[in-house]
Amino acid sequence: MMKQDEIFMHQALQMACMGQYSARPNPLVGAVLVRNGHVIAKAFHAQAGKGHAEKELFSQYAGTMEDATLYVTLEPCSHFGRTPPCVDEIIARRIKRVVIATEDPNPKVNGKGIQRLKEAGIDVTVGVQRAEAISQNAGFFLRMLENRPFVRAKVAMSLDGKVAMHSGESQWITDVPARESGHLWRARSGALLTSCETVSKDNCQLTVRHPTLPSLLPKQIDFHPPLKVILDRTLKIPASARILQHTKVLLAVGHGLSEQKKQHFLSQLPAYHQVKIVEFPLENNHIAFGAVLQCLAELEINDVMIEAGPTLLTGLLQSKQIDELLIYIAPSLMGANTLAMQSLEFSSLSDVLRGDFSEVKTVGKDIEARMLISDWARTNNAIIKNTQEFVCSFIP
Amino acid sequence: MMKQDEIFMHQALQMACMGQYSARPNPLVGAVLVRNGHVIAKAFHAQAGKGHAEKELFSQYAGTMEDATLYVTLEPCSHFGRTPPCVDEIIARRIKRVVIATEDPNPKVNGKGIQRLKEAGIDVTVGVQRAEAISQNAGFFLRMLENRPFVRAKVAMSLDGKVAMHSGESQWITDVPARESGHLWRARSGALLTSCETVSKDNCQLTVRHPTLPSLLPKQIDFHPPLKVILDRTLKIPASARILQHTKVLLAVGHGLSEQKKQHFLSQLPAYHQVKIVEFPLENNHIAFGAVLQCLAELEINDVMIEAGPTLLTGLLQSKQIDELLIYIAPSLMGANTLAMQSLEFSSLSDVLRGDFSEVKTVGKDIEARMLISDWARTNNAIIKNTQEFVCSFIP
Repeated sequence: MMKQDEIFMHQALQMACMGQYSARPNPLVGAVLVRNGHVIAKAFHAQAGKGHAEKELFSQYAGTMEDATLYVTLEPCSHFGRTPPCVDEIIARRIKRVVIATEDPNPKVNGKGIQRLKEAGIDVTVGVQRAEAISQNAGFFLRMLENRPFVRAKVAMSLDGKVAMHSGESQWITDVPARESGHLWRARSGALLTSCETVSKDNCQLTVRHPTLPSLLPKQIDFHPPLKVILDRTLKIPASARILQHTKVLLAVGHGLSEQKKQHFLSQLPAYHQVKIVEFPLENNHIAFGAVLQCLAELEINDVMIEAGPTLLTGLLQSKQIDELLIYIAPSLMGANTLAMQSLEFSSLSDVLRGDFSEVKTVGKDIEARMLISDWARTNNAIIKNTQEFVCSFIP
Repeated sequence: MMKQDEIFMHQALQMACMGQYSARPNPLVGAVLVRNGHVIAKAFHAQAGKGHAEKELFSQYAGTMEDATLYVTLEPCSHFGRTPPCVDEIIARRIKRVVIATEDPNPKVNGKGIQRLKEAGIDVTVGVQRAEAISQNAGFFLRMLENRPFVRAKVAMSLDGKVAMHSGESQWITDVPARESGHLWRARSGALLTSCETVSKDNCQLTVRHPTLPSLLPKQIDFHPPLKVILDRTLKIPASARILQHTKVLLAVGHGLSEQKKQHFLSQLPAYHQVKIVEFPLENNHIAFGAVLQCLAELEINDVMIEAGPTLLTGLLQSKQIDELLIYIAPSLMGANTLAMQSLEFSSLSDVLRGDFSEVKTVGKDIEARMLISDWARTNNAIIKNTQEFVCSFIP
């Protein structure tokens, strides 16, 4: 049996999920106001620049709060960021008690908000559903604590491990619902990363295409497409590639590329392009992936999703730089002779790589499974699962 | 909303499941007696030679049945088999109404039971939950209608399609709960089939080893281990192989093997062996699998489960002789260099082979999925799923 605090914090975590397609780079935050065992207001953070969950809640409810308890999934902020500090308003409203799931790892907050509330004489409880709250914002926590985003790699394969490699809708292995689910995972990501090789083979766009995404967004909130990141050591990508169009692209190239080559490439692009070339150091003749992740963290990316072929995937698995595999498995056997398929052959994996399934379900005709690989992700296994159940139960 | 007849037939189907480890070669049958909307007795068929579901029900309930409705998942028998005909007793008990899920495909019954009941003036309804009832006894129906058992093939693999091939507990890919679930699937099978090659590599026993199987059996019912079938065209299996011990073994060899070779082989076995050598015609230098299936049907095998390496599997998939793949997927990537692993390379599959997942769940750390392949199995997809849910909801 869950205690009362846990029940209401669960509701706050569910509220937080409402911002899952729009809150980034900010963390998901939900808040619930309770009096005499009844929820009297609830709110969430919808988008950077919009009100924090606490502020949204206060804008809904004007009555007295002196006998109320505020449940909030992340420590209220104590600093002036894009908006003024929430603790000031909580104190001004004379709320009796504040229950907080977890401290904010942001060094600008990190306990200072809790301290301010306590100094104002408010009864503060910290740590209710802490694990759930941390894993709900896994990418944000990793960015704050380790200066890198959460790295998710998507793979769609047949049951015998064959991966579609060439473009054309007919080459899709999985069915429409699985592909739509993949688009929702794109929508949750701050960046989508692929390789020049994959772009050359697939001419993929990495756009978010989902028929009902607008209805999943909070009201009056626009969707910001994720940044596209392309690993292209020697700048071989064709300037005509579709992925370079319309949205922001970071072209990650190797150190030492001539200025002339870069300028020539950019001059080939149409005038409205939003392509930026960034140089990275090399490791074993490859772009140092850790440096790319650090760069993405500095661009406030919480979650990056890799959609690339087995070559890049194998390298990143080998160097233990993937937190989670998002796997779609079709009910099909492709055989060895099937055209346009590449085997999921992790040929350079020297050791067996073990993980944990965090969520397994059918999406249309296919299986969607998440396999947690990194120690960080595996430690939070059970918790991410719970958070997902919230998503399922909450969104109608 | 389910109608009243459907609700009670569901209960009868649930009852039938209680015999899933013991009723073979007989079909699973459940019966429920209802008066004024209340269940007054329920029963199932536990084992061949024991009472049919209807008989068991009558032995429980001695009161009048003139105003009662009997729900039974299979047409009551009208012939003397191992037990006297059930229709006689139903008529003698003056039951007012009988609801039957499906006709018995057994040519000895096949509508005659229904006809007898109607002739006796009983109100008979046929076809409530028919699809569920048929797929609950898929193997029995196939044996009656097509003179072959339902063919299930088990595969345990890593996420990148690697299959353990050599023996030793350390070589197991999947974890204990998945392996135990595999043993329950063995227990449901009338026969387990493998190849001489697999036996030579694995020295597998194909015994049913499950810690709580005795508690899943009906009271006072013994478990009969499935028949072991080994495809061994030229009789190469070592006489010392563990699989030849203790239980019944059918050694399927190719036509034309010398009597001397067979006698010599049998003479090497210990005195208590139960090994029988049966010759089969060859097709493309392999034992004709269709002939083996026909032989198994004549031995009253409803369900055969194949546990063999990718070579045999590929051949049977290619010739479309597998109804269902039972797949266990571990949360691991094995890489190409892992010792003692074989890739699930369906190299001779010339076409893409598509199926339907009928049930996907996690069992311990692993995924268990059933992929229906044959037209027969795919046609009954949704229904088998429902039946499984009964199993889950009924067994505490």
